[in-house]
Amino acid sequence: MTRGDSLNVVVLAAGLGTRMRSSRPKVLHEVAGLPMVHHVLKAAEALSPKRVVVVIGPDMPEVEQAVAPWPVAIQQERLGTADAVKAAASVLQDVKDGDELLILYGDGPLITPETLQGLQQRRQETGADFVWLGFRPPSPTGYGRLLLAENGEVEAIVEEKDATEDQRRIDLCWAGYLLGDAGRLLAFLGQIDNRNAKGEYYLTALISVARKAGCSSRSLECGAEEVTGVNSRSELALAERLMQERLRRRAMEQGVTLIDPDTVWFHHDTEIAADVVVHPSVVFGAGVRVATGAEIFSFSHLEGAEIAEGARVGPFARVRPGSEIGPKARVGNFVEIKATRLGAGAKANHLTYLGDTTVGEGANIGAGTITCNYDGYGKHRCEIGEGAFIGSNSALVAPVRIGADSIVGAGSTITKDVPQDSLALSRAEQINRPEAARRFREMRRNDKETS
Amino acid sequence: MTRGDSLNVVVLAAGLGTRMRSSRPKVLHEVAGLPMVHHVLKAAEALSPKRVVVVIGPDMPEVEQAVAPWPVAIQQERLGTADAVKAAASVLQDVKDGDELLILYGDGPLITPETLQGLQQRRQETGADFVWLGFRPPSPTGYGRLLLAENGEVEAIVEEKDATEDQRRIDLCWAGYLLGDAGRLLAFLGQIDNRNAKGEYYLTALISVARKAGCSSRSLECGAEEVTGVNSRSELALAERLMQERLRRRAMEQGVTLIDPDTVWFHHDTEIAADVVVHPSVVFGAGVRVATGAEIFSFSHLEGAEIAEGARVGPFARVRPGSEIGPKARVGNFVEIKATRLGAGAKANHLTYLGDTTVGEGANIGAGTITCNYDGYGKHRCEIGEGAFIGSNSALVAPVRIGADSIVGAGSTITKDVPQDSLALSRAEQINRPEAARRFREMRRNDKETS
Amino acid sequence: MTRGDSLNVVVLAAGLGTRMRSSRPKVLHEVAGLPMVHHVLKAAEALSPKRVVVVIGPDMPEVEQAVAPWPVAIQQERLGTADAVKAAASVLQDVKDGDELLILYGDGPLITPETLQGLQQRRQETGADFVWLGFRPPSPTGYGRLLLAENGEVEAIVEEKDATEDQRRIDLCWAGYLLGDAGRLLAFLGQIDNRNAKGEYYLTALISVARKAGCSSRSLECGAEEVTGVNSRSELALAERLMQERLRRRAMEQGVTLIDPDTVWFHHDTEIAADVVVHPSVVFGAGVRVATGAEIFSFSHLEGAEIAEGARVGPFARVRPGSEIGPKARVGNFVEIKATRLGAGAKANHLTYLGDTTVGEGANIGAGTITCNYDGYGKHRCEIGEGAFIGSNSALVAPVRIGADSIVGAGSTITKDVPQDSLALSRAEQINRPEAARRFREMRRNDKETS
Repeated sequence: MTRGDSLNVVVLAAGLGTRMRSSRPKVLHEVAGLPMVHHVLKAAEALSPKRVVVVIGPDMPEVEQAVAPWPVAIQQERLGTADAVKAAASVLQDVKDGDELLILYGDGPLITPETLQGLQQRRQETGADFVWLGFRPPSPTGYGRLLLAENGEVEAIVEEKDATEDQRRIDLCWAGYLLGDAGRLLAFLGQIDNRNAKGEYYLTALISVARKAGCSSRSLECGAEEVTGVNSRSELALAERLMQERLRRRAMEQGVTLIDPDTVWFHHDTEIAADVVVHPSVVFGAGVRVATGAEIFSFSHLEGAEIAEGARVGPFARVRPGSEIGPKARVGNFVEIKATRLGAGAKANHLTYLGDTTVGEGANIGAGTITCNYDGYGKHRCEIGEGAFIGSNSALVAPVRIGADSIVGAGSTITKDVPQDSLALSRAEQINRPEAARRFREMRRNDKETS
Repeated sequence: MTRGDSLNVVVLAAGLGTRMRSSRPKVLHEVAGLPMVHHVLKAAEALSPKRVVVVIGPDMPEVEQAVAPWPVAIQQERLGTADAVKAAASVLQDVKDGDELLILYGDGPLITPETLQGLQQRRQETGADFVWLGFRPPSPTGYGRLLLAENGEVEAIVEEKDATEDQRRIDLCWAGYLLGDAGRLLAFLGQIDNRNAKGEYYLTALISVARKAGCSSRSLECGAEEVTGVNSRSELALAERLMQERLRRRAMEQGVTLIDPDTVWFHHDTEIAADVVVHPSVVFGAGVRVATGAEIFSFSHLEGAEIAEGARVGPFARVRPGSEIGPKARVGNFVEIKATRLGAGAKANHLTYLGDTTVGEGANIGAGTITCNYDGYGKHRCEIGEGAFIGSNSALVAPVRIGADSIVGAGSTITKDVPQDSLALSRAEQINRPEAARRFREMRRNDKETS
Repeated sequence: MTRGDSLNVVVLAAGLGTRMRSSRPKVLHEVAGLPMVHHVLKAAEALSPKRVVVVIGPDMPEVEQAVAPWPVAIQQERLGTADAVKAAASVLQDVKDGDELLILYGDGPLITPETLQGLQQRRQETGADFVWLGFRPPSPTGYGRLLLAENGEVEAIVEEKDATEDQRRIDLCWAGYLLGDAGRLLAFLGQIDNRNAKGEYYLTALISVARKAGCSSRSLECGAEEVTGVNSRSELALAERLMQERLRRRAMEQGVTLIDPDTVWFHHDTEIAADVVVHPSVVFGAGVRVATGAEIFSFSHLEGAEIAEGARVGPFARVRPGSEIGPKARVGNFVEIKATRLGAGAKANHLTYLGDTTVGEGANIGAGTITCNYDGYGKHRCEIGEGAFIGSNSALVAPVRIGADSIVGAGSTITKDVPQDSLALSRAEQINRPEAARRFREMRRNDKETS
């Protein structure tokens, strides 16, 4: 039996429909480029659960869509966490003996699979019915404190207002996360009352119900940052920072040199090999892979790109989706590359736009080269052959093929194919008009004086 | 009676003439793009004061000019804070019964209107003659400590050197800021002596003079960062950071998403609507307004610009003064826009310079387009009509009009107006010389071998 | 006698051959653009030592090469720090009476000359045989503690595992750095045994050997950051940060304004004069000097460049090696300058590439100008005369001379020299085809419908 076979996950996400002073529901806000709830689902999915149910409020189509294909359950009124889990019960009717139930939060994107596996392991090792996830916040004021017996048994969770002075000094708090016997947890929900200030049903009360029924409870402690919840733009920025720190640490552990880690912004899916050097101030968008020995210079922005071994990108490079930068190829400053394959050792070093283009091995794209790939209606392709040399300030009007080892003269607008080994030019003759500059200046000066 | 009618503010600013290892006087140094003393004046002006007097040293025309139209008073010698306030007395001769006097500092740019209003409110509520502004520095060593009675009465301000061991443990310090009855404060100045190590007259001594005269004193506490003074480049950088943190927090509270707040640099006057997303590493210069739903991508630099709803700017965009980016318009990478109006849905996506130009709705500006708006003497305008399509790598020589729905062929230099619906071209014929590239290569190789 | 005459330095660097999850040996990793071990050598060289010996492992040609011309000594097996110093003994055979020996670490790039001079001074003042460098780490656990007598005599260095509870509370630790009488230090090495868990020979044991022989020992304390060692990518990033903070602090102390010091990245050799303003997010590569009154705007990347008084660079400027930006000259956005001299007051403001070019005083380089300095085989020069005006979107095909006060028309490709005061043009005539744009649109729309 794999553990996943018996694991049910309930993600409480009714809060994701709220709008944080905004017209966008919270669910659409991202951390490291991924909607918050997806981080939670990813952490849950790492445990290969039998199912995940996401509890949402009514009229939250964006959240429903975001979590598909996992089913949602509707909590009609927001009457507390225990009530939210109750809402999931209909989807969980086929829970079996020995099944586990894990409670997660849709706006807690920093929870890790390692911690969730830790909950399972703690439960297995101790034989406890429930394992409560504790953490030590910088300031515990306001949180429910976990009261542990000497043997580690959780005896109670005491709310701030009910705590004695001694209990308030305890800094191990409960974050709302919980793993337990599925059947019992669902059964006990009905015994939780709402005799409290807000008249809501809280999972906190589960501990006393469970103890009365003779169930045992243990705890596991995780880092405070893992249970960070996001309820404001500032907390969103904090979650982003914590996630970025995690991604940066991981990259460095894997042998990537980050000269200033604080100014390298990763996407959650960025893949960078050992011995890549990333200079300060680089943004990775979705879908970037960088092979070993490549170097990414400052002020580069990469998205949807494959960077091969030993390639050098930036500074000031913009690499857009669909790009492949070949081995030892070079993308220089103020260069934009889109849906373009740059062959091994090819160079586009200065002030260039390459779109929908294939550049052969060792070709050299001169400064100021522009591919004209769009005619207002469709995109067309440029093919630039191996070893071709595109002179500076040229425009290549697609569709067009520049043959291998050919040369395009500087300043040309190329509209017809260029055969291999040919020289192509489109250039008006230069005319020098002696003294004309002097006359122009005098005229303009007079204009100014008389005006 | 509005409170402002009775409020006099004295800003002590003699220090602003000093030069911090520099040829520029301190007054010219800016925080969030505004000279330090202007932040102080803005905070004071928020209280609608009857008058503000700025006390400066002799020969400080830059400071005098910076604070105009508020009057200055000259402190001939720098003989302490009480002496500086005395210097302001001449301007304050018409102080009336019931007038208040507020003491601020020209190199303390972080003081907030909220705190100053708090001083007024505390004075009104307690009926105190004087309210002293306290703060708790990370390390209180060196500061005068505020000694409070149980009822909140300020009994003394004890200098470090005169403090008992118990007093040194007090961490509530006095920052030099003070609100009091104007008549009494001015009257008491004459009773402050200079029997101290430096032979100067300090406002600190006011407390004992006031108590002897039977006046009551209370205190108000503010955050330590509010009373940060700037006396070095490091402190200037610290003040900038604290101010930026304040501006960033405010933006996020108003519903702006800052993915990495630490790398978004605001100008003090930046206005950003809710639901704008600002990516990492963006600089806002003076006079930028961004409407809801716009997105500002990394490595963008904006100044003097209006960004309309849903517009997308960057990455790598430079938007300069006098620019209006229309609704859903798009300014892409390595694009500079100056004194240019981009109509709704218009696009300038790649390597483009638009200066003194009007771009109609839905027009498409191809990659590498350059407006030639300057002839060495004057600036001229380009008008690009609605729906026009400017082919890549074109130069538009101003003054010139490109008609609506017209097309400019790639690589053209346009010097004459283009009528509506026309196609304009200026293009030399392309010539392909077969084998010429091969011959060129061979020749160059031979050159190298024989040289 | 200068002190240097008697100073021998041993740099323990066997660890620099290791690879930190990488194919590059640690020695090649840089801090502020300088390999780690060079920082150590620079600090040592500031004391004008008689010699420096670098102890490396076998098969470490990269390290040997990096430290040349200083000699290396090979430690065959890594048997501890005392064993490593023993390896250096062969190179130190001519040590004389009164010679000093200083022990440094090749992966400790943050040690300062000031601290090393402090060790010498402490030794001289106290007449001690050995001076041990102490520091107070944030958490001392794991470090050997320095036990001092009341008179400052170092009585022992106690390893964590041998320490009493009281000793563990001591937070002054030993960092491995040591200055001592050279003859005695070398003589005592033979008496250090390897009776410890790893069977290695540690310098720590020197203290007890020395005390038994009646030698005196004192200590000097330095900041914890100075003894930071680099053994991982994270520690490399930390060392970089600490070094950058040092460079930033130094610049600000010298009168440079750094608006956001955390996003200005210096090279170890950057020289910036007082009253330069550096905006947020600027990268300095090797060999940059900036004169007073210059201003460097955000998103600029400078390397191997001389920036004269009052010049303005950026935002979005790339200045590459061999560039001189003259007084009050201007390098604007999306401009790359390489091996180019820009005369006083000259301007290259927009989307320009200048390579191997000389630009005369007051010349104006229009937007989108490209120098075509490379023909695939060699680099050629452009000379642009004083007061010349290069129209926008021009290509200058090197070698070429543009005479003083001449004008190049916008959109020209210039292949022949332009005489002084002349106007040069290379421009195909503009043709407007009425209604052609409308027909093109209709055709393309039809294409789409029928396809």
